[in-house]
Amino acid sequence: MSAMLEVHAFATPNSLKVPIALEEMGLDYRLVPVNLRQGEQKTDAFKAMNPNAKVPVLIDRSDSEDGDVVLGESAAILVHLADKTGQLLPKNGPRRSKVFEQLFFHASGLSPAFLQAFLVAIQSSPQPDAKARALAEVDRTLGVLDHVLEHHPYVAGNEYSIADIAHFGWVWRHQAIGASLDKFPSVARWYGEISSRPAVVTAIAKTLALA
Amino acid sequence: MSAMLEVHAFATPNSLKVPIALEEMGLDYRLVPVNLRQGEQKTDAFKAMNPNAKVPVLIDRSDSEDGDVVLGESAAILVHLADKTGQLLPKNGPRRSKVFEQLFFHASGLSPAFLQAFLVAIQSSPQPDAKARALAEVDRTLGVLDHVLEHHPYVAGNEYSIADIAHFGWVWRHQAIGASLDKFPSVARWYGEISSRPAVVTAIAKTLALA
Repeated sequence: MSAMLEVHAFATPNSLKVPIALEEMGLDYRLVPVNLRQGEQKTDAFKAMNPNAKVPVLIDRSDSEDGDVVLGESAAILVHLADKTGQLLPKNGPRRSKVFEQLFFHASGLSPAFLQAFLVAIQSSPQPDAKARALAEVDRTLGVLDHVLEHHPYVAGNEYSIADIAHFGWVWRHQAIGASLDKFPSVARWYGEISSRPAVVTAIAKTLALA
Repeated sequence: MSAMLEVHAFATPNSLKVPIALEEMGLDYRLVPVNLRQGEQKTDAFKAMNPNAKVPVLIDRSDSEDGDVVLGESAAILVHLADKTGQLLPKNGPRRSKVFEQLFFHASGLSPAFLQAFLVAIQSSPQPDAKARALAEVDRTLGVLDHVLEHHPYVAGNEYSIADIAHFGWVWRHQAIGASLDKFPSVARWYGEISSRPAVVTAIAKTLALA
């Protein structure tokens, strides 16, 4: 029997976000590995689920009325799960809007900066200029996050939300891209707290096991 | 008296999205120019509204109970306005989730690709390699959009939504970055239709007048 919630994923920052949310929400799910090293995200079968050819993809079979939901984009999956369960996203008001502000700052700002620095870091002989430019933008986005976290315990205010999960996915890889949190004490405080949440520890173990 | 809805913006793709949504929804608003050429988005006053130092920013004073909403990130502003009015975003179900998938594909995929190509295009002597690489990613994201629009009239299905407005903001500048829609007939069909909507025509005129 197929699971009601199926997550097609690999051991990547964007994939990690989804199991974290599912563990936090106490939902059952099945992880289906998509081996990016073998290009499995570029097969016709995968692109029928997500024409953008990227992990993760969620298949939600639990809504019998409207048919299966097949969804790409990690942050869209987080919103779907939050609306489904009523967890980790305020139902309305300014606090809800601030979660979306952070989700889109993540998608358009922090995530592309970290991705670019990662792509430079894995080159066999990266240009020093390219590396410095990429890390400068990483530090700029971490500076914005640090400013936000200086005023609030979590990225969208006083409550832990799916926006924390989105940012955590990439900040989790800061060492791999050669960045440091030393200059960002509020990010470091937040990162330490999120890292030790039981749901996060479990999700990291399950995500790493996909590689 | 201050307007209930104030949009701090300039003549940019991300700014344009907000007046389009406001015109479509029939809401009154005031546009406040932020001159990017003079670096006005980097002042302390602006960064108090958006520490990421980017336009647009929405100030919504209409909710007396919860206080003013001050919001950065164009797509987060679109979600806020859609939830506020009940327009251009299905209230629930798979169709709602597909709008978010496209909003996040825009924020993390199409928008950074177009921005990068724009930054290369405005260099005084761009490297041919950098230009070709940037336009290749623009074409890849337009190809994904074309595939989606081959199967549906709008980017998230059968209904016009805030996801169309988000994508339109950047596709509007395709000529300025040296891209062509000739290879993407479904995007060209969609672009022609959206361009001629009265709300879009009005919003473009008001946005260009900010420069």
